Amino acid sequence: MSAHKDQQFGSDNYAGMCPEVMQAIGNANQHHVGSYGADDVTQAACDKIREFFDTDCEVFFVFNGTAANALALSSLCQSYNSVICQRQAHVDVDECGAPEFFTPGIKLISATGINGKLRPEDIDRLADVETDNFHGHKPGALTLTQATECGTVYTPDEIKALTNCARKFGLHTHMDGARFANAVTSLDCSPADITWKAGVDVLSLGGTKNGLGLGEAVVFFKPELAKDFEWRCKQAGQLCSKMRVLSSQWIGILDGNVWRKNAQHANAMAQRLADGISAATKTSLNYPVEANAVFVDLSEEVTQQLHAKGWHFYQFPGAGSRLMCAWDTLPSTVDSFLFDLKSCLKTDSTNNE
Amino acid sequence: MSAHKDQQFGSDNYAGMCPEVMQAIGNANQHHVGSYGADDVTQAACDKIREFFDTDCEVFFVFNGTAANALALSSLCQSYNSVICQRQAHVDVDECGAPEFFTPGIKLISATGINGKLRPEDIDRLADVETDNFHGHKPGALTLTQATECGTVYTPDEIKALTNCARKFGLHTHMDGARFANAVTSLDCSPADITWKAGVDVLSLGGTKNGLGLGEAVVFFKPELAKDFEWRCKQAGQLCSKMRVLSSQWIGILDGNVWRKNAQHANAMAQRLADGISAATKTSLNYPVEANAVFVDLSEEVTQQLHAKGWHFYQFPGAGSRLMCAWDTLPSTVDSFLFDLKSCLKTDSTNNE
Amino acid sequence: MSAHKDQQFGSDNYAGMCPEVMQAIGNANQHHVGSYGADDVTQAACDKIREFFDTDCEVFFVFNGTAANALALSSLCQSYNSVICQRQAHVDVDECGAPEFFTPGIKLISATGINGKLRPEDIDRLADVETDNFHGHKPGALTLTQATECGTVYTPDEIKALTNCARKFGLHTHMDGARFANAVTSLDCSPADITWKAGVDVLSLGGTKNGLGLGEAVVFFKPELAKDFEWRCKQAGQLCSKMRVLSSQWIGILDGNVWRKNAQHANAMAQRLADGISAATKTSLNYPVEANAVFVDLSEEVTQQLHAKGWHFYQFPGAGSRLMCAWDTLPSTVDSFLFDLKSCLKTDSTNNE
Amino acid sequence: MSAHKDQQFGSDNYAGMCPEVMQAIGNANQHHVGSYGADDVTQAACDKIREFFDTDCEVFFVFNGTAANALALSSLCQSYNSVICQRQAHVDVDECGAPEFFTPGIKLISATGINGKLRPEDIDRLADVETDNFHGHKPGALTLTQATECGTVYTPDEIKALTNCARKFGLHTHMDGARFANAVTSLDCSPADITWKAGVDVLSLGGTKNGLGLGEAVVFFKPELAKDFEWRCKQAGQLCSKMRVLSSQWIGILDGNVWRKNAQHANAMAQRLADGISAATKTSLNYPVEANAVFVDLSEEVTQQLHAKGWHFYQFPGAGSRLMCAWDTLPSTVDSFLFDLKSCLKTDSTNNE
Repeated sequence: MSAHKDQQFGSDNYAGMCPEVMQAIGNANQHHVGSYGADDVTQAACDKIREFFDTDCEVFFVFNGTAANALALSSLCQSYNSVICQRQAHVDVDECGAPEFFTPGIKLISATGINGKLRPEDIDRLADVETDNFHGHKPGALTLTQATECGTVYTPDEIKALTNCARKFGLHTHMDGARFANAVTSLDCSPADITWKAGVDVLSLGGTKNGLGLGEAVVFFKPELAKDFEWRCKQAGQLCSKMRVLSSQWIGILDGNVWRKNAQHANAMAQRLADGISAATKTSLNYPVEANAVFVDLSEEVTQQLHAKGWHFYQFPGAGSRLMCAWDTLPSTVDSFLFDLKSCLKTDSTNNE
Repeated sequence: MSAHKDQQFGSDNYAGMCPEVMQAIGNANQHHVGSYGADDVTQAACDKIREFFDTDCEVFFVFNGTAANALALSSLCQSYNSVICQRQAHVDVDECGAPEFFTPGIKLISATGINGKLRPEDIDRLADVETDNFHGHKPGALTLTQATECGTVYTPDEIKALTNCARKFGLHTHMDGARFANAVTSLDCSPADITWKAGVDVLSLGGTKNGLGLGEAVVFFKPELAKDFEWRCKQAGQLCSKMRVLSSQWIGILDGNVWRKNAQHANAMAQRLADGISAATKTSLNYPVEANAVFVDLSEEVTQQLHAKGWHFYQFPGAGSRLMCAWDTLPSTVDSFLFDLKSCLKTDSTNNE
Repeated sequence: MSAHKDQQFGSDNYAGMCPEVMQAIGNANQHHVGSYGADDVTQAACDKIREFFDTDCEVFFVFNGTAANALALSSLCQSYNSVICQRQAHVDVDECGAPEFFTPGIKLISATGINGKLRPEDIDRLADVETDNFHGHKPGALTLTQATECGTVYTPDEIKALTNCARKFGLHTHMDGARFANAVTSLDCSPADITWKAGVDVLSLGGTKNGLGLGEAVVFFKPELAKDFEWRCKQAGQLCSKMRVLSSQWIGILDGNVWRKNAQHANAMAQRLADGISAATKTSLNYPVEANAVFVDLSEEVTQQLHAKGWHFYQFPGAGSRLMCAWDTLPSTVDSFLFDLKSCLKTDSTNNE
Repeated sequence: MSAHKDQQFGSDNYAGMCPEVMQAIGNANQHHVGSYGADDVTQAACDKIREFFDTDCEVFFVFNGTAANALALSSLCQSYNSVICQRQAHVDVDECGAPEFFTPGIKLISATGINGKLRPEDIDRLADVETDNFHGHKPGALTLTQATECGTVYTPDEIKALTNCARKFGLHTHMDGARFANAVTSLDCSPADITWKAGVDVLSLGGTKNGLGLGEAVVFFKPELAKDFEWRCKQAGQLCSKMRVLSSQWIGILDGNVWRKNAQHANAMAQRLADGISAATKTSLNYPVEANAVFVDLSEEVTQQLHAKGWHFYQFPGAGSRLMCAWDTLPSTVDSFLFDLKSCLKTDSTNNE
């Protein structure tokens, strides 16, 4: 119980696998089958993802999001290209340089935007370099994070505006969808609406934060960009030999729309948390709560007291405390946190107006 | 049933997870816990591996063997180093250049040796370059495969002789232990006997072929070589967020010596297969059968007939047909194959003497 | 004449070789000699550089400054390290990612500092990361530019303070000395005072801007950091076969202190230019003029008129117009520019107060 | 005199610059001009190379042959491609892995061929891999060396046959022309005949061994392959700031066909040497002498005596002693060597039949 509480809100990958995923792994764990993806389960999982996006995309399963992003970008960039991202983007600040390691020489360039979201004018500014200035990088790709690192969500129109802008400069477009399901359910749109229909070329489709044990999919909406992608995966140590162990998990969340249930629940818990925090504190939240994250400025005193009570969450530079909800966060856990928060705020010496 | 037979003997990663591994994943899949290895299950798995090797080694869990090898070598080599390996070594011929991708600039140099095993004189020849010849590579590491790609096994003394020779030239020593458990049980020695006690610096400890769903461990017997290895893992997309999903699997095979049971069984099935083939054919096997692989020259006619009957196996250039047994290969499957083989041989038009 | 004027002030590498360098090449261009540095001229040039620094340093000749910087950093960094630099540093903004290309995975992180110079507090802020946060980079090196991109110069004490701070965090220290001679003569100190005596581990010693046709030297004050550096040079395509063609040029500027004469002249011309501009314009210069560069804000109208008159110079983002003097800039050219500037300012419609 | 003799025959880059090159550098070393290639001399040099090849090719000047090869291959290959070369090729054995460093992950695969020359059947064998076998590399390019490392020369028809074979497998074709001029004069053909007319996509055009002080050109006969090549050069530290120092040298050898005079002379000296050696020894030479190299098996006793007399030459594994002639090798030096050789042979205790 205490261990359970301990780790709540720290990250959405503190949660385990959802039961449907465990079940799917068990179902697939039968007999001898071909390795490296040459099996029926993997074929079925790819088909389900194509169905999910309602288009004939190319699908590859890799082990984690860092690899998905880095490999996707390697198929879009030459060594002298730059990649435009939002300042807090996971690819730039939380992957220990995986993109630059997988594609030696590239540089990530960033803008802050608003609420964790890039704006067309940001791209205009970053991409508009002299086309023959070989002393700097040549912009090659745009990467958007959906839902963003700030727990906000790009609308289909916002994505279209950004990818149109990117295309104007000849950039390929990538989406880091570590929390893609959270964005889809938040927008109540179709997966297609915020990907290929909005001009996205390649997607890192997140599974881990949506209830998988591990695994992300790289989804190419422009098949020509997927050329020889198996080789890239293999060379980067990202080709699973017993592939069904990865691919079956996707069947677990795609069958019966478990992905939606999981994401909706996480989003709802974040909303419940946000509402409670807003009611309890006098300050507003740092970003609109559109997915499964809540960012709020808490005094150091309150933070320490909450940590002492066993609650776990991180400070993000310039963004405050991040409270993250998972597919399995209980309403009672949220309420218990809010109860403790109120109690801490009451005695907060720094909170007297 | 036919699907089952279909895929037998093709590879030891055609098998699924053993039940103890499934159980261990399920046990670990509770509550929220810290990510990236900051959890009790992972801690316990590391401790069990240290106990397995009877020494205080550094342990890191990665997703697959290609990554384990490439990351281990990256910690041993500078860009201008060469790595000495046996000609058929997985690192050189079956990893699409992962070592060269993870450590840009290195070169793998190889010798054939005998029965898939390098000899000290091979190292003497390959490592003995002029020490100031900067036009070529500077030998930096030796990598041995145990059990070898040919299904043979290095004895402790053979390993000692090779690592002594390597040390003479200032080389670090790595062991690719994709089938390490098969080697240990074949030799009836301790894991320590063929690693740190025999002069091995770093080991890629194989899990997948021993009954895991996925996952290998990189084990450093010289802690100074493990410096900052978490950064390397993270940067290479090899740091699992829900680490317990990987690490718990190791508990599944280490508890109760399941690793030994699985490996012994696979080796025994290979022996049963080998004995049957030797009895049935007039030619000898291509290599001594010391682990879970059998290599034999079959005529094209026989090969095609066996394939037609639903048996699956590959040709290896210069090594003949490889028949691989797994932790779950049934004696009856072996016997059924032998029955079909004998029947094919009887009618083999190319086999008449 | 017009072509001559045309290109003045654009860059200090618009100038040719100084006559002493041409002479030295001619002197060395005799007979057959050993290649790749195994010749007497190269030996003599190395010795002269050791004499120049008054210490037993390791010296390597490479083709240009981008390579010198990237190779030097490759000997200081692992793939997961970050390099701290000033925001406008050549390594970060003008080398198309050479450091990241030569050492795949590293990231450059920067602070603005004051007048193009980093301050200890900048390092404190950038280097002070959690030592076990493997999601980000691990700071590995500090690189300082001397003279800076803004035409300012670090004093020996400033460098000491910065390298002390770097050492506190375990960082190696590199100096990009593309305009090292300009800094030495500006400070009227010894080369040792601003390098090894001030805590610098490795220096990219600039030749091209000091009168060479091409070539920079990488100078290691800590010999252990130079380990196997010939291999790095060779592998990176930076080992000159007819090495004397490069090395002899260094004899040309080191003999008779031509380096000092060239740098002093360039600095003096920049001062003459700065004084004239200050007198002519009502605005102050953008940075103290301590080496051979002058940065000033000119109105677009004035800029265009000067360009139309044949003067060549560039705009630097946030730093204004850069006017760069070379070893061979004539006083009369400076005066001619000032004459034109005054004439343009007189009619500048945007300059009326 | 003794120093001169000392270094003869060791390598064709033991020679200095030819006078026409020195003169051309001096001519170009006037005034201020644009850097990084934005100058008239560089423009003229490019035009002369286009004229040389009688086609509208793309031309880039880099510092040395290792860089020319590695950069050319980087424009032809993805990380998972292999490059087919002859076993003794400089790219594979004498560049310390520069190709693998510039394009991390690629692998060089080789065949011995005949007399240092690949044959179509070698390509057939090496390139014919299963097209979906992502465990190994995907063949991406063929590189031929002209003249070869063995001092032999491919005829136009031989090159055509090889590039046709390469194209059959979808491979790009590169030629390492470190001694291109020697090949052209040996064949008495046009430069076009053995490049674009024979199916070569990209050429590393050698200057250094033809009389330059340093510098090679990368020549793209298919302009689309040259896309963004300036960025590659800049990023790799191969873009010369005072470009005219490199480019003017080309004018030195292209004006008045100095390139031909230099190459013809070197070839003629090798022939004189070969004839003399053949007459003096009873063994035949190891390869046909078609360019400027002679390979011969000399007893260890003779070799040591010649070294003692001050002659300099290297042993090449499996190819014997290499004697290399340069643009400035004197007939009298050849004769003096032959005189000493005969004298050594006379007393050679191992040579009595």
